[in-house]
Amino acid sequence: METRTDWLRQAIKPLDEAARAAAQARQQQLTKPPGALGRLEGLAIQFAAMQGSEKPQVEGVFIGVFAGDHGIAQEGVSAFPQAVTAEMVKNFARGGAAISVLAKQLSAKLEVVNLGTAFETGDLPSVLQCNLGKGTANFAQQPAMTESQLEAALQAGRDSADRAQQAGAQLYIGGEMGIANTTSAAALACALLGLSPQQLAGPGTGLDHAGVQHKAQVIARVLALHASHLNEPREVLRRLGGFEIAALTGAFIGSAQQGIPVLVDGYIASAAALIAVRINPGVADWLLFAHHSAEPGHTLLLEALHAEPLLNLGMRLGEGSGAAVAVPLIRLACALHSGMATFAEAGVSEKI
Amino acid sequence: METRTDWLRQAIKPLDEAARAAAQARQQQLTKPPGALGRLEGLAIQFAAMQGSEKPQVEGVFIGVFAGDHGIAQEGVSAFPQAVTAEMVKNFARGGAAISVLAKQLSAKLEVVNLGTAFETGDLPSVLQCNLGKGTANFAQQPAMTESQLEAALQAGRDSADRAQQAGAQLYIGGEMGIANTTSAAALACALLGLSPQQLAGPGTGLDHAGVQHKAQVIARVLALHASHLNEPREVLRRLGGFEIAALTGAFIGSAQQGIPVLVDGYIASAAALIAVRINPGVADWLLFAHHSAEPGHTLLLEALHAEPLLNLGMRLGEGSGAAVAVPLIRLACALHSGMATFAEAGVSEKI
Repeated sequence: METRTDWLRQAIKPLDEAARAAAQARQQQLTKPPGALGRLEGLAIQFAAMQGSEKPQVEGVFIGVFAGDHGIAQEGVSAFPQAVTAEMVKNFARGGAAISVLAKQLSAKLEVVNLGTAFETGDLPSVLQCNLGKGTANFAQQPAMTESQLEAALQAGRDSADRAQQAGAQLYIGGEMGIANTTSAAALACALLGLSPQQLAGPGTGLDHAGVQHKAQVIARVLALHASHLNEPREVLRRLGGFEIAALTGAFIGSAQQGIPVLVDGYIASAAALIAVRINPGVADWLLFAHHSAEPGHTLLLEALHAEPLLNLGMRLGEGSGAAVAVPLIRLACALHSGMATFAEAGVSEKI
Repeated sequence: METRTDWLRQAIKPLDEAARAAAQARQQQLTKPPGALGRLEGLAIQFAAMQGSEKPQVEGVFIGVFAGDHGIAQEGVSAFPQAVTAEMVKNFARGGAAISVLAKQLSAKLEVVNLGTAFETGDLPSVLQCNLGKGTANFAQQPAMTESQLEAALQAGRDSADRAQQAGAQLYIGGEMGIANTTSAAALACALLGLSPQQLAGPGTGLDHAGVQHKAQVIARVLALHASHLNEPREVLRRLGGFEIAALTGAFIGSAQQGIPVLVDGYIASAAALIAVRINPGVADWLLFAHHSAEPGHTLLLEALHAEPLLNLGMRLGEGSGAAVAVPLIRLACALHSGMATFAEAGVSEKI
């Protein structure tokens, strides 16, 4: 049976191995001891393969931030009230949120997509409204999304990747805002990785020890309720995910299909990346991981994704903020790769 | 007895504790869960205390790169020939080196100070010439520097910090170039920390295992030769240091006296920072550590300095390159701190 989400499994753009080899050869000739720029060397080579250019550059950065509320918030799993999701959408629009400040500093294009908040945001000209409901259903009682909500949320992410492509983006960052979404991400990770809620539940925006224990118990109940329906990643996403997490999944798959490198943010974005890779394994070639979140369970998600993030600064904000902070490293890696002289050009002696 | 280096122990500028408290209070009001920006929060607060401003900014960055050769290179302790020091000075001047590319990308002021190379650099209008000799003496046989060479090298660093101050710099980075200078840095660290050459000697620019063993043996001989003269940091520097390491020491002390924050690069710069702090402990308040070098002994230097670097990217190039790569993190930390809305400004609900 053909469904409206068959696009998820369509082919991913292949990497350019000739450009990779050319970039590798160039790195060996630059005026420095081989390997002395550490991970910056591999980053430049990876972008060469993704851009199909011996000398890549990453100027155009596109940040899509997806907001949505979660019915599971009713279970008391967040340190902040649900009203904050809509309030933060307004803060994004007005430029006061962390990701707004970072996007401006990086000269990145920022778009905010509201997929459905429990509270009204009012009229916000700069926010794309894609209203799928007043948040997901409480997945401690029923699947978080209907089939049509899931399809629309995935498509909203794909549409964002399409806009990034049309804008000439050389890097895609997906951010999120949704009170209680670390509970959704933890439940998704438990289901996909066969791990326990104790391993994946963390403080999120600031739960204390008792709050984390309660959150783990809620997730254990959730996993028992849905146990017989958790064999397929798309269905896991529909039952335990959120609008914004599904949109991130769609955006990551769409970006990889378009050939736009994705810089994955923290805990929530990594859960979406895991689903994307489980749905379409080729997506992995296009994912870079920006930072190691302070949310403890992120370590397990990163291991499952064979990811070695660039930064470890104790960040745990979401919004795409950790990914945005890593953008200058990529830009500098490309500038060094393209701008440094070779031994021959500079007349510098090579290793003895 | 008064000497020409009494300035080394002159008072360091005190931090502004009122500005620190104001910045701490501001961080608590920004629209994010408390602590969610991780180390970026502390960075902004630290710069507030250093700049004496609740909302610090770090636009003006001054990079002083010091070059000098080392007599100890005669002992076969480097993977690259000594000619490379002078060749790289030319490469700095022509814009082809890593630090040249990074300085341009960061809109930072880069100055190159040649303190004495074994080979001629020819006329280079953009390089400050401060010729103290054709490199240091071989400290496997005698002290690396005479008293007057040490004084001049320290003063050259202080002069660089003065130029940074006159240029309105808000951050000072010290870089270095000198074939065999990891041997000097390792010997200095052994002498100051009472550690063994096996713990501090590493591959530098690319020695193999046998090369590292030989380097450790050379350092052991050096420590035995100078053993009865290693009780005082300034004398340790004169006997086992290098022109460029002494200049870095002078630059770090001078910056701290002027009230310019110092972003310390990797292994060599950390050895200079350790000497600076041993000579004048107040310098520590003005030091930030950019990255964890791939040179194994750096871990021990960082521990001795109670330093937690921002980055760990496997870099080991020197030139100030690791510090330069960390500059955008500081700029973004300050931009977030100053540019984000408070809960009250944005009408966002606080923690339950």
